[in-house]
Amino acid sequence: MATSLLLNYKYRILYSTFIGVGVRKTRQILVGNVKIGGGTPVSIQSMTNTDTADSVATLHQIDQLAAAGCQIARCAVQNHDALTPFGEICRLSPIPIVADIHFDHTLAIGALERGAACVRVNPGNLLSEKAARDVAHKAAEMGRPIRIGVNMGSLSENAKARYGRTPKAMVESALQYVRLFEEEGCHALKVSLKASDVRTTVSACRMFAEKTDIPLHLGITEAGPVSCGIVKSAVGIGALLLEGIGDTIRVSLTAPPVEEIKAALRILEATGLRKAEPEIISCPTCARTRIDLMQLVSAVEKAIDELKASGHKFKVGSIAVMGCEVNGPGEASNADIGIAGAANKQGILFRKGRKITTLEAGELLPALLKEL
Amino acid sequence: MATSLLLNYKYRILYSTFIGVGVRKTRQILVGNVKIGGGTPVSIQSMTNTDTADSVATLHQIDQLAAAGCQIARCAVQNHDALTPFGEICRLSPIPIVADIHFDHTLAIGALERGAACVRVNPGNLLSEKAARDVAHKAAEMGRPIRIGVNMGSLSENAKARYGRTPKAMVESALQYVRLFEEEGCHALKVSLKASDVRTTVSACRMFAEKTDIPLHLGITEAGPVSCGIVKSAVGIGALLLEGIGDTIRVSLTAPPVEEIKAALRILEATGLRKAEPEIISCPTCARTRIDLMQLVSAVEKAIDELKASGHKFKVGSIAVMGCEVNGPGEASNADIGIAGAANKQGILFRKGRKITTLEAGELLPALLKEL
Repeated sequence: MATSLLLNYKYRILYSTFIGVGVRKTRQILVGNVKIGGGTPVSIQSMTNTDTADSVATLHQIDQLAAAGCQIARCAVQNHDALTPFGEICRLSPIPIVADIHFDHTLAIGALERGAACVRVNPGNLLSEKAARDVAHKAAEMGRPIRIGVNMGSLSENAKARYGRTPKAMVESALQYVRLFEEEGCHALKVSLKASDVRTTVSACRMFAEKTDIPLHLGITEAGPVSCGIVKSAVGIGALLLEGIGDTIRVSLTAPPVEEIKAALRILEATGLRKAEPEIISCPTCARTRIDLMQLVSAVEKAIDELKASGHKFKVGSIAVMGCEVNGPGEASNADIGIAGAANKQGILFRKGRKITTLEAGELLPALLKEL
Repeated sequence: MATSLLLNYKYRILYSTFIGVGVRKTRQILVGNVKIGGGTPVSIQSMTNTDTADSVATLHQIDQLAAAGCQIARCAVQNHDALTPFGEICRLSPIPIVADIHFDHTLAIGALERGAACVRVNPGNLLSEKAARDVAHKAAEMGRPIRIGVNMGSLSENAKARYGRTPKAMVESALQYVRLFEEEGCHALKVSLKASDVRTTVSACRMFAEKTDIPLHLGITEAGPVSCGIVKSAVGIGALLLEGIGDTIRVSLTAPPVEEIKAALRILEATGLRKAEPEIISCPTCARTRIDLMQLVSAVEKAIDELKASGHKFKVGSIAVMGCEVNGPGEASNADIGIAGAANKQGILFRKGRKITTLEAGELLPALLKEL
């Protein structure tokens, strides 16, 4: 969590009131030591792509994920041989581990016995209702939470028959599975409703949010190549978070998992649920731009990353790098400190929109860094 | 528009009904030959960052923007020397040109006289009410539209005094300016309400949308470095578009303008307002992944880009590249054609979720390309 400051529930409520919508009230569950729901800050998850049987490689990746800001990691448990290394991963990981299970419910039970903080099942692809009930019973007995994952590709048969491949069918599937798990005494549940289509996902999550108090895990599944995937995830997850829906998120990208964490942090920052420390505000380049803005922004980003890595405590919360004096200081008057291009290869340094001094272009970056 | 298919109003209404919200009804205006509002497809804009006085360089950039899918380009007109080259740009550009004016209203009038398809003014930084009325009068006389741009940095004095630096103050500023322009007979208006903060922007646009039928130009101003800027824009613009709000968009990035067009297209695709042709669906990598998914997705993207560049007509609308047989064909059963990894360095080719054949890993890409 080096790069972000967690913001609390009060802040979320304040913001939501501000924009005229409520924050959805959900029951709270515990995945290891991470609270999900009940007004706690939205947490970030990812999934390892190493072979779970290779516990050393997997733990190495989890360390990288945790360092980047990941709070919960999920590992696929594909067969019984993976259970022993999975147990090792659970024991040694710095963050809680969720077992990802498909088809074979005995793997879910085995993963719980080996220390999984949570198990993600897709009841639609477990072999029978009995199998799902066995998992629910075990989780209830051990006091562990379950994530029920419903994808458009794995709807319950009767929901699919009744509603087709629709958001409604996803919600009905999820509610059926929830009832089944609750009947076995398993109430520590979270649910994900994922489709590769943003509108379908948003619609399903909204509908589900109205019907229950179960925390929602948000994500767009099979979001595609990284360039499109980030946009799809930002639109879908972002729109829901702006409405106060969503308790934990995973950005799915066809990319190294650490990229998922970076993207997730940016979404939380964009929705105002975390604050980047410090935030960089910069303007698009236009014909008014008086300085080499792209180069300057890159240099500022690099300098901030280096300061962060050295454990620097920043004196400012936001930094503006603006192309010109026209919009610069005015637009960035919320920024604690800023620089903007001016005529004659000069620039200005400003604080809260107020000009402090005029400098030569080459002096701007050093002057800005001195203020951090 | 080589890469995207425009989707019509019926489709937007269908989608919006589907997710339970309406599409906002707006008055229609014409920027050159591009219709904005009144149910026409959401259009994409960008702004040149060349010196407008250098008409050759600017026209070259506009050509690049148009080729990438930009439908309207904006050029800053900073002084009277830029007016003659600006007129040349208007005459020779393949897409309509908007003049971006600050401070000096005589530049707005000059730009209209030289062929600007629209003028963007920020009435908050024009020198007087009289100046704004002169611009309005001229535009009305010539039958040209005006974009009224309100930024948090340039609120009207009385709105700021009354409501502080809030979304409400932005909306009140905009409505005051709208009244002023309409009083002069200028009804072909569009409005932008931009803040660098996503929630403020979304909130202001929602409020404005409820009060008028004036088309909205959406964007997040000073969105910051490209990595954060794309996410901020996708969340803010995306959330509004999902609600049926927004008639034309610009993604502001501190990056080459063509990147803004690519990001804008991705946002329209993610919100279902345009269809990527063909769309690539791929899953995140996980321990179940049986093939080198990232490499394969890149190869598919590259092949599609090359086919597009050669003017190829695709036989399929969506292509799935999936890591494993577990989720692959099921999740991607909407995809017209797909490949997924299987055990023993093999993979499967599937159509609409149904397996066609099993192939060696190396044969997957050629087999897929044959189907396009």
